Amino acid sequence: MEKKIGFIGLGNMGINMAKNLISEGYHLQVYNRSINKADELNAAHITKCHTPAEAAAGVPFVITMLSEDEVLRESTVGADGILKNLQPNAVHISMSTISPDTAKELAKLHTEAGSHYLAAPVFGRPEAAAARKLFICVSGDAEVKNLARPVLDCLGQGVFDFGTEVGGANVVKIAGNFMIMASLEMMAEAFTLAEKNGLDRAQVANFFGSTLFNAPIYQNYGKLIANKQYEPVGFKAKLGYKDARLAFKLSQASETPMPTVNTVHSRLLTAVAKGWGDRDWVEGFGRGVSEDAGV
Amino acid sequence: MEKKIGFIGLGNMGINMAKNLISEGYHLQVYNRSINKADELNAAHITKCHTPAEAAAGVPFVITMLSEDEVLRESTVGADGILKNLQPNAVHISMSTISPDTAKELAKLHTEAGSHYLAAPVFGRPEAAAARKLFICVSGDAEVKNLARPVLDCLGQGVFDFGTEVGGANVVKIAGNFMIMASLEMMAEAFTLAEKNGLDRAQVANFFGSTLFNAPIYQNYGKLIANKQYEPVGFKAKLGYKDARLAFKLSQASETPMPTVNTVHSRLLTAVAKGWGDRDWVEGFGRGVSEDAGV
Amino acid sequence: MEKKIGFIGLGNMGINMAKNLISEGYHLQVYNRSINKADELNAAHITKCHTPAEAAAGVPFVITMLSEDEVLRESTVGADGILKNLQPNAVHISMSTISPDTAKELAKLHTEAGSHYLAAPVFGRPEAAAARKLFICVSGDAEVKNLARPVLDCLGQGVFDFGTEVGGANVVKIAGNFMIMASLEMMAEAFTLAEKNGLDRAQVANFFGSTLFNAPIYQNYGKLIANKQYEPVGFKAKLGYKDARLAFKLSQASETPMPTVNTVHSRLLTAVAKGWGDRDWVEGFGRGVSEDAGV
Amino acid sequence: MEKKIGFIGLGNMGINMAKNLISEGYHLQVYNRSINKADELNAAHITKCHTPAEAAAGVPFVITMLSEDEVLRESTVGADGILKNLQPNAVHISMSTISPDTAKELAKLHTEAGSHYLAAPVFGRPEAAAARKLFICVSGDAEVKNLARPVLDCLGQGVFDFGTEVGGANVVKIAGNFMIMASLEMMAEAFTLAEKNGLDRAQVANFFGSTLFNAPIYQNYGKLIANKQYEPVGFKAKLGYKDARLAFKLSQASETPMPTVNTVHSRLLTAVAKGWGDRDWVEGFGRGVSEDAGV
Repeated sequence: MEKKIGFIGLGNMGINMAKNLISEGYHLQVYNRSINKADELNAAHITKCHTPAEAAAGVPFVITMLSEDEVLRESTVGADGILKNLQPNAVHISMSTISPDTAKELAKLHTEAGSHYLAAPVFGRPEAAAARKLFICVSGDAEVKNLARPVLDCLGQGVFDFGTEVGGANVVKIAGNFMIMASLEMMAEAFTLAEKNGLDRAQVANFFGSTLFNAPIYQNYGKLIANKQYEPVGFKAKLGYKDARLAFKLSQASETPMPTVNTVHSRLLTAVAKGWGDRDWVEGFGRGVSEDAGV
Repeated sequence: MEKKIGFIGLGNMGINMAKNLISEGYHLQVYNRSINKADELNAAHITKCHTPAEAAAGVPFVITMLSEDEVLRESTVGADGILKNLQPNAVHISMSTISPDTAKELAKLHTEAGSHYLAAPVFGRPEAAAARKLFICVSGDAEVKNLARPVLDCLGQGVFDFGTEVGGANVVKIAGNFMIMASLEMMAEAFTLAEKNGLDRAQVANFFGSTLFNAPIYQNYGKLIANKQYEPVGFKAKLGYKDARLAFKLSQASETPMPTVNTVHSRLLTAVAKGWGDRDWVEGFGRGVSEDAGV
Repeated sequence: MEKKIGFIGLGNMGINMAKNLISEGYHLQVYNRSINKADELNAAHITKCHTPAEAAAGVPFVITMLSEDEVLRESTVGADGILKNLQPNAVHISMSTISPDTAKELAKLHTEAGSHYLAAPVFGRPEAAAARKLFICVSGDAEVKNLARPVLDCLGQGVFDFGTEVGGANVVKIAGNFMIMASLEMMAEAFTLAEKNGLDRAQVANFFGSTLFNAPIYQNYGKLIANKQYEPVGFKAKLGYKDARLAFKLSQASETPMPTVNTVHSRLLTAVAKGWGDRDWVEGFGRGVSEDAGV
Repeated sequence: MEKKIGFIGLGNMGINMAKNLISEGYHLQVYNRSINKADELNAAHITKCHTPAEAAAGVPFVITMLSEDEVLRESTVGADGILKNLQPNAVHISMSTISPDTAKELAKLHTEAGSHYLAAPVFGRPEAAAARKLFICVSGDAEVKNLARPVLDCLGQGVFDFGTEVGGANVVKIAGNFMIMASLEMMAEAFTLAEKNGLDRAQVANFFGSTLFNAPIYQNYGKLIANKQYEPVGFKAKLGYKDARLAFKLSQASETPMPTVNTVHSRLLTAVAKGWGDRDWVEGFGRGVSEDAGV
């Protein structure tokens, strides 16, 4: 008999994750605001649902991969939300990038409803999701983490446990996105400095990516920034800005002054204000620095 | 017959580089402000000199590894400087972290004197120098680069050519040091954010260093910052501040606004103002962020 | 017959405003969380109330002077809030420093309830409130502004009309507080620069306050900053921080990158993180700059 | 018999100052790089000179009003500089905006030459210079200040004594220019915030200029910024940038971290990088903030 999972959110990330679950033998009860996105999935192994509640009915696990706190909250506690139908002891595996406060709030509601909430945000672009190369951070009840583990193992190359406080993994995710943004800004500044001093951006990027900064972040994004290659749009500047806001808000909530958060937040706010919100966030950083430098 | 090289500057970096040259069969005419530093070298293979000029006499190559522009300038054009004795067609391999303007100025003086100047700054800490693992960036005349290559190969794991404009390699060095400083700041902010949200700094550092940021910068410095381990002092905050000033000055000279340079410059200026100039620069970043956050 | 006004919020500002209204012949139905604050008022001219709703019963005007958005919202729409009792066509004169969004939201609720909401935030410290020297900014329906005018004239030296969009005056108030904070930061930096260069802070402050910057902000705050006189506490750093957050939030909501908001926000967040939240905000700026400079 | 003064530097400021001295009965030995600027002066009361040295010959006072440190240094110690001819006990009244280090260096050279150097930088735009409304800051030897006083009284509305350390007045001048720049930035941010929230920039500027910020800086510049009126060019952005650099350098030299200096420095560096160096500095701030905000 096929194992069933509720799956909510078929964006660039979600669609690839859903495919991996299907190929591992799961049957998915899928919900997406534009349900025709589900046509990309093998029809034999999915059930299209009209609401998050429907997707959550009768399954041991429901996964959410949504764009922001508000959407997740509505999908969970709204009139047709997950909690309406989630059966006792079922686990909501929450993989979106959201604030730890939202995680705590939702976890409490699940507990009250007799079900479980697991924070499980991921690192990786859509290609990584497709290749099952996501890094998955989890936090929450130990037993719940064990229950969810086989599902998570279908989605990523590693699961990292950040304790039993439910918001912990979300903090790590926000901190990591901040570090990525800071890296984009840093490279845009460094390569523009090199360019204005007569050097070749690509050569400089290649040097750093193959020596001191030989990590994927610097290699992959480094090439895009060096070549001012801002298309196709992989991750929109306005979504990056949303993440910068999460980082800023967390720095406020935990009283942690972070000057670099100011910088990346301003950079992306400027991108949005200039009308680049739907362009790639790399353009927000790269073009932002270039324009300020008059090149 | 032993090959001779002039070697000026026996600091933490220089001393290790000198040893590697000796072990490759070179005889060194060494000069250092405190000449007793030369006692660490095999006496049979060195000649202690009283001035840079003396060290530069009669050799095909003189290497300088000094702390800053002014010291290099004085050692080169001062009354007892290299140029006083450097023979025609000899090459001054200049490996210090200095501004491209100083490089250009000195290169011009060498040309006028009939000798050659090669910009060859390096990336790597003293351990890397000892292990012959430096990354060496060069810029200058192509033929001169060829001449110097055998010497450079004794010192590092790779030589990277940034063109014929003499200041190019210096720009890359300054850009790289800026990126390292930005990385230290970024980690100090991210780990403190994690700490203030109840997470373990070391676990977070370890996670990033083994996944998205799996480059030595993040692994090695990440551990120090996570553990607030500021001793022993490897690189003094005041030297880091000197590098931040070089980056700032270059951003001015080339009209490249760099907000992250502002941040790291302020961080290290604050460290110096607070009296931490002789402590490790990691402390400047790590403790600086911690104190601002009240932890 | 005595004219009656509901008055909610007897903090350092409110208490002085209430006194002025009483001396102009109004009878006040007062509410304050700690109602014993009302003992400072002439008992013959006040009625102590147990809830905001009680204070709002049967009066043509109710004034609120509260610490923040949430408190105002609760006092207005809570179970015992103003709207429970406010009679048709009565005017809620809202004088707290709040976001324009809260103003719009509350205005809409008043309209639905058949009453009126007038945004009327003020500039001025408690002494100015006592001396009837407040500057009052208003925005909202023109007729409502006319109705409220005689009341406002008892409280300030000028009423400034910022149009019919209800949030307008709140925007001006937030912009003004931002400019004050930026001025405090600027002076703290300038005077510390002077001090570290061997000059007398007070002489420098006095010079600027009597020449280029001969405005009260620079004269009064200038003296406090110059003398590092941080007591008595006039306005708490944590309240200043609240205002910095309002400015930051407004810059986000309206997509206006404001680097100086970053600076003052970080300064006060740092003050709060260091445990200075209950000290004067001037200390947040003055001591913050001094400590960073090692003096 | 006419009193003689050497006068060097007939820019927008100097020309007006020279006229005031002439109208007080002084005969001026004038030098300017483009000597035809002197045609604006009454020919009967001037002697046109070909070098600074010539202008300094045989007079008790020589005034310099030049654009920057380097020009002043060259005019003073160059082959045809002031010191070549300045007679014993004559006073060099140095009114340019320069660093205190240059002041100290030049003062020392005057002392060695048997003459005197007085730091006397001024605050005020060309109109203020014409109207004899400059604020003059002085520092240096007390007796020299007394000697120069009658001359200074012809030029400004007040002379402010900042002690005997010769660089003191220069520090005050740099601190003041920093405060003006910070004020321009602050207003540009605040007015743009107001604009993007539907308010009228001019009304907001007028409100602040007539209440909390009723000082000339806010009234005059406030109007220009509010109206985005960037012409005619009164003070070029590149000269403002030079002053920002002086402030930055002084903050470095005295180890005073100043985040607001970072902001105004970046703002003007960006203006210069974007090619606005020859436009008014108000445009650098006003347009800079507007463009970042997409308006």
